[in-house]
Amino acid sequence: MRLSEFAAKLDDRLDTEAYADLDASANGLQVGPSPDAGAAGSDPEVDHAAFAVDAAAETIEATADAGADVLVTHHGLVWGGLDRVTGSDYARLAPLFEEDVALYVSHLPLDGHQELGNAAGLADLLGVRDREPFGTLSGEWIGTRGEIPGGVGAQELVETLERDLDVGGGGVQLLDFGPAELSEVAIVTGSGVDWLDEAIDAGVDALVTGEGKAKVYHEAREAGITVVLAGHYATETFGVRSLQRLADEWGLETTYLDRPTGL
Amino acid sequence: MRLSEFAAKLDDRLDTEAYADLDASANGLQVGPSPDAGAAGSDPEVDHAAFAVDAAAETIEATADAGADVLVTHHGLVWGGLDRVTGSDYARLAPLFEEDVALYVSHLPLDGHQELGNAAGLADLLGVRDREPFGTLSGEWIGTRGEIPGGVGAQELVETLERDLDVGGGGVQLLDFGPAELSEVAIVTGSGVDWLDEAIDAGVDALVTGEGKAKVYHEAREAGITVVLAGHYATETFGVRSLQRLADEWGLETTYLDRPTGL
Amino acid sequence: MRLSEFAAKLDDRLDTEAYADLDASANGLQVGPSPDAGAAGSDPEVDHAAFAVDAAAETIEATADAGADVLVTHHGLVWGGLDRVTGSDYARLAPLFEEDVALYVSHLPLDGHQELGNAAGLADLLGVRDREPFGTLSGEWIGTRGEIPGGVGAQELVETLERDLDVGGGGVQLLDFGPAELSEVAIVTGSGVDWLDEAIDAGVDALVTGEGKAKVYHEAREAGITVVLAGHYATETFGVRSLQRLADEWGLETTYLDRPTGL
Amino acid sequence: MRLSEFAAKLDDRLDTEAYADLDASANGLQVGPSPDAGAAGSDPEVDHAAFAVDAAAETIEATADAGADVLVTHHGLVWGGLDRVTGSDYARLAPLFEEDVALYVSHLPLDGHQELGNAAGLADLLGVRDREPFGTLSGEWIGTRGEIPGGVGAQELVETLERDLDVGGGGVQLLDFGPAELSEVAIVTGSGVDWLDEAIDAGVDALVTGEGKAKVYHEAREAGITVVLAGHYATETFGVRSLQRLADEWGLETTYLDRPTGL
Amino acid sequence: MRLSEFAAKLDDRLDTEAYADLDASANGLQVGPSPDAGAAGSDPEVDHAAFAVDAAAETIEATADAGADVLVTHHGLVWGGLDRVTGSDYARLAPLFEEDVALYVSHLPLDGHQELGNAAGLADLLGVRDREPFGTLSGEWIGTRGEIPGGVGAQELVETLERDLDVGGGGVQLLDFGPAELSEVAIVTGSGVDWLDEAIDAGVDALVTGEGKAKVYHEAREAGITVVLAGHYATETFGVRSLQRLADEWGLETTYLDRPTGL
Amino acid sequence: MRLSEFAAKLDDRLDTEAYADLDASANGLQVGPSPDAGAAGSDPEVDHAAFAVDAAAETIEATADAGADVLVTHHGLVWGGLDRVTGSDYARLAPLFEEDVALYVSHLPLDGHQELGNAAGLADLLGVRDREPFGTLSGEWIGTRGEIPGGVGAQELVETLERDLDVGGGGVQLLDFGPAELSEVAIVTGSGVDWLDEAIDAGVDALVTGEGKAKVYHEAREAGITVVLAGHYATETFGVRSLQRLADEWGLETTYLDRPTGL
Repeated sequence: MRLSEFAAKLDDRLDTEAYADLDASANGLQVGPSPDAGAAGSDPEVDHAAFAVDAAAETIEATADAGADVLVTHHGLVWGGLDRVTGSDYARLAPLFEEDVALYVSHLPLDGHQELGNAAGLADLLGVRDREPFGTLSGEWIGTRGEIPGGVGAQELVETLERDLDVGGGGVQLLDFGPAELSEVAIVTGSGVDWLDEAIDAGVDALVTGEGKAKVYHEAREAGITVVLAGHYATETFGVRSLQRLADEWGLETTYLDRPTGL
Repeated sequence: MRLSEFAAKLDDRLDTEAYADLDASANGLQVGPSPDAGAAGSDPEVDHAAFAVDAAAETIEATADAGADVLVTHHGLVWGGLDRVTGSDYARLAPLFEEDVALYVSHLPLDGHQELGNAAGLADLLGVRDREPFGTLSGEWIGTRGEIPGGVGAQELVETLERDLDVGGGGVQLLDFGPAELSEVAIVTGSGVDWLDEAIDAGVDALVTGEGKAKVYHEAREAGITVVLAGHYATETFGVRSLQRLADEWGLETTYLDRPTGL
Repeated sequence: MRLSEFAAKLDDRLDTEAYADLDASANGLQVGPSPDAGAAGSDPEVDHAAFAVDAAAETIEATADAGADVLVTHHGLVWGGLDRVTGSDYARLAPLFEEDVALYVSHLPLDGHQELGNAAGLADLLGVRDREPFGTLSGEWIGTRGEIPGGVGAQELVETLERDLDVGGGGVQLLDFGPAELSEVAIVTGSGVDWLDEAIDAGVDALVTGEGKAKVYHEAREAGITVVLAGHYATETFGVRSLQRLADEWGLETTYLDRPTGL
Repeated sequence: MRLSEFAAKLDDRLDTEAYADLDASANGLQVGPSPDAGAAGSDPEVDHAAFAVDAAAETIEATADAGADVLVTHHGLVWGGLDRVTGSDYARLAPLFEEDVALYVSHLPLDGHQELGNAAGLADLLGVRDREPFGTLSGEWIGTRGEIPGGVGAQELVETLERDLDVGGGGVQLLDFGPAELSEVAIVTGSGVDWLDEAIDAGVDALVTGEGKAKVYHEAREAGITVVLAGHYATETFGVRSLQRLADEWGLETTYLDRPTGL
Repeated sequence: MRLSEFAAKLDDRLDTEAYADLDASANGLQVGPSPDAGAAGSDPEVDHAAFAVDAAAETIEATADAGADVLVTHHGLVWGGLDRVTGSDYARLAPLFEEDVALYVSHLPLDGHQELGNAAGLADLLGVRDREPFGTLSGEWIGTRGEIPGGVGAQELVETLERDLDVGGGGVQLLDFGPAELSEVAIVTGSGVDWLDEAIDAGVDALVTGEGKAKVYHEAREAGITVVLAGHYATETFGVRSLQRLADEWGLETTYLDRPTGL
Repeated sequence: MRLSEFAAKLDDRLDTEAYADLDASANGLQVGPSPDAGAAGSDPEVDHAAFAVDAAAETIEATADAGADVLVTHHGLVWGGLDRVTGSDYARLAPLFEEDVALYVSHLPLDGHQELGNAAGLADLLGVRDREPFGTLSGEWIGTRGEIPGGVGAQELVETLERDLDVGGGGVQLLDFGPAELSEVAIVTGSGVDWLDEAIDAGVDALVTGEGKAKVYHEAREAGITVVLAGHYATETFGVRSLQRLADEWGLETTYLDRPTGL
């Protein structure tokens, strides 16, 4: 499969276009040759794709070591554009050029996808039913919500997450201000605490998300809502694994690069 | 002392004006009567001041219970203005009005003050010498840097922080990518990881800060810099305690409200 | 009726949402508790509603004296948001908190409503027929236009207004530059002189509005259009009185607070 | 004197440049030939200058009838630029081109000038002493403040204004909420009610200004400050008369065009 | 025909409204009396219309000399509004006022019109078939693309343009980086090199446009696309000639003013 | 010399910092490794520097072929930042990474430098004396002006330029609207026609610049000023040649890459 076709199929499936104006991340093919430059362009063959949460020296090197042609990540290298190509930007781009590895990135489109996305994967793990999209950013969704049939105790939910996620050394942090039994939950992975107001307004029992922020504590306490902080990395492995499964279906060789950060 | 004088003395000492255009927080007297409204204004007497990191229902109630006239915090209630006065804004403002408690807030001015501020206090704890301001935001400083004479091992630094700060359940998180012996350190409390680039460019061995963000891991790893995450709350008690000492000197009765959040 | 239901019914009837991005006034429930704050929220019962043109110390006190739960006004307290809660803002908000009075505001939605609105009420008074919306602001209407069957002399129109409106000491001001007999008229209450160009372009004989501005004189004179200035307060009592009638129909006790300003 | 010299002398005296970025009015030579267009430019002789508050068909025609070469006004024809040259803009520009009359405008520079300006002239009339600049707009002054020695009763002040100003039919409007004896007064002519907050904060007894706005009533009432509304036109004849005296000194023939509007 | 009707018919045919927010040129009636100013407005009769590429002293004078009532051009006098009416703006507007000549302008609407426009006319000359709109600016088209049946050599295409266009002294410039035989071509007249990226992405063999810019050389060379620079004036006579034919059909007397610039 | 020192010396000499906010070009080290990325950064040795007007595939390849370590150009690859690294951006960056060639760019700083710059070099060629900076962009200079002692005929000036510059096939274009003898001249190279108004206002006889734009013809004609268009490339070789001489003085091996474009 040509790289441009690989990127176009992912863009189409993830609706990359819909998030173009609202995401600081340059989603889609972020670094690599493309045929839209006339004679100067090119369109290499993709036989082997690597998948990781973060694009970084560590994962780019592992991609090259694995002999893969493209690295697909949730967090890329270009946020809000590049002013110039020096310093750490140069250092991170260099191995991509030198090893002929392309970089495909899907940030918010992969957070919000209701089947393939990070929140969807976490909802599967928690057995959430009757789901609806949750968490709006300029009109697009980036999370999900639904009901855990029969409800679950906060401590039990934490144990499930600690058992099944790669949560790093710090474990799962619990702000236990909601009801004893959690039934209605909202899920926004990563930095999802910014949607706490929306979760409160929606009346759910708990917001399950990744990394914390200081201001969340008192907001949750006063609103009487439980917040579960299971780690940014740990809650965002679902989306890229879904894309890996897609690539498997397309007949590509695939490699998953697990590099937990404890954050 | 009149409330307006109390606020003016703090504004003067903290240079509140210099941060007016770059901080989303409404610094200075944030909620309370003031004499600049003609006959409709008023200027109550302040005999007793309470101090806390966060303005929240819990600390406002404690202020009223203590019989204090004003609550002084690092994190206030108004960020980027209020569109209207309903919901959680109404709920948090209500006890201030009902209990006749005023709210004075100092966010970035208190982060950056080189003697009274949060970073300055943390630097004192770590024995940092030869200090210079560090961490710029639109031309103002919000942190400090300097040398730990003789250097300190990363693990030893973590132990010091865990022992002397109220770091909550999760402990201090260490991204141990710098040299074994840490000598030059930069300190920006709270969300200071946003100044990691500046710390790398300054060539320090470690950045000591409060809460983490996912993107920091690989950036620190590739740059070979150590990052110490000691908690947002834990690293930001120094500033309000300094202000309490000031108020003590001014002859006021004072109360410190310690409400750690674990975040 | 709960306060949230009272506000929602008014929002729905007045189409508050449509004016959200174009009005500096925070329309809808502007000050008061609401249930969208989780456990910190609340939703008091509304049995008695007061109505006035202006939210001010005078009308807020009268609302409390009358024992009403909510004050409904055309001009509120929050314009373009509050940067902080001090000075005159604190002084005006204080009695609302202390007396447990909520404030519901409808500015442009109430100017523009073609049945309940200020211009509609003034058009009723003048016997204007074959009405159409008039006066656009970012795509929404804020006034009305139509025909006075048989026409009316400018002086006669002034006398009608002086007789039936509470125009204060200064009386109605007449810029008598149009035809002797006025047939087609446009109405935008309050500061409606900003729509003089639109009235000229529409070819009406007269613009009937509230308060004047210096620039209007020569513009009207050169265009040959009559402008009638009947006072800002005097032309804007119609809308809140319509809302009072609605509340009567809903079975609430209601009080109208007439506080003419002469402006 | 050449037109360019005439304009340059006025610009210099009024400090037109300082107000360039904060006034919607195009101050200085607003309509007329200038030598900065190379061969296409020109620089006519100015022997006779006319002065009026407003640039309008009426005053432009009177300028041509008087045989003057330039009309100097406080209110000009170009506010915020011209998108195109049609409709009323075309109609007002046409006589200037056809009669070879240039237009020089000084809006805020003439409001704020502490000797020649509108507020300065009104302060002279009221016998205000110990003056200081008052009323800031992006760092520039547009009014004045000072003390009336011995104080004056509000009613007496109104009578002075009604006697000595061309206040039109409506007379002077008094919002009598300040002390019985007015001593400290602030003056901003025209639409100066927008500086009511600054007047309250400055602690003056009264703000003397031109035209009213609805919101002023309750703000003044609650703050306990008197507001005197003497008319926009009536309070703004002082500045252009000062400029006429300047032109007299320069040896030009001059004509004052008095066209009161009652607004 | 009244001027307002003349302008309205052109606006309607050219869809002037669609380009209102994206063109710095004030399209439509740009200078002249219009009836939308009430009594101050007017609506002169148009019997004779002149047409030219550029509105300038030379063409305005020729319009007056020809006794025409309106000048219709592609490039007008008002770009991004007028801050004031002095210098070269005054010098160019003066003859329009003095000679009672109105100015109608159509810039981007006339570039993009797929039948009457500049690109359409150039495509007719080159025998381009199977045309589609090309060249987007904020969602509107400003050029065309299609196929030259059988293809044409680059040199032959240059000769056609040099023979049939008024290309001035410098001749047509050829950046001959595409295939020997040019079949698929994109056309954006005037400054169309800004759409080179879009032409490369569309995969055409050549972009035919007006004036060059330095950056085009290497971009075209690397992409392997031919760029033909036939002059800004020379490629933009088609549109105004089309409008002249329309006016002929409407029964007006018309004059074409050919003033080539060599640019 | 290390690359960072090479860039710092050029930045210092050209005052790169002063143009940082007003130039779309990323001036200074634009592509290449730098030591400001901690362990991920690097700082290669520069022994040999190549110089060219344009950064493009052609000049980058020639740099690598010459064995140079850095390419110094007036026109770089990054204008207004990079949204992502694909298409023609990828194609142009690839050889820089693959050949370990860094790119240093100086756009407006090199236009405006009064000794080393493009305009300065062209002024030397024309024998311009008594020079002053000319051509302002947000407060910085980008050209020069002065007097040609004794004056020069327009045709003679054209002949000088055609003889001594690499003007490409089209020759020098002359808009001969000024005086027969040209004495006072302004020089802004490249797209300097945008400063025609400033040249007219300065009263010079001629503006000497690079590439033309359609609108210049009538503006120059009406103002009575001569415009000489000598080509963008041809007028901008002076600056990079000056930098080559600097590098020679620093003891580096240098190569000049002459790639005229005819534009």
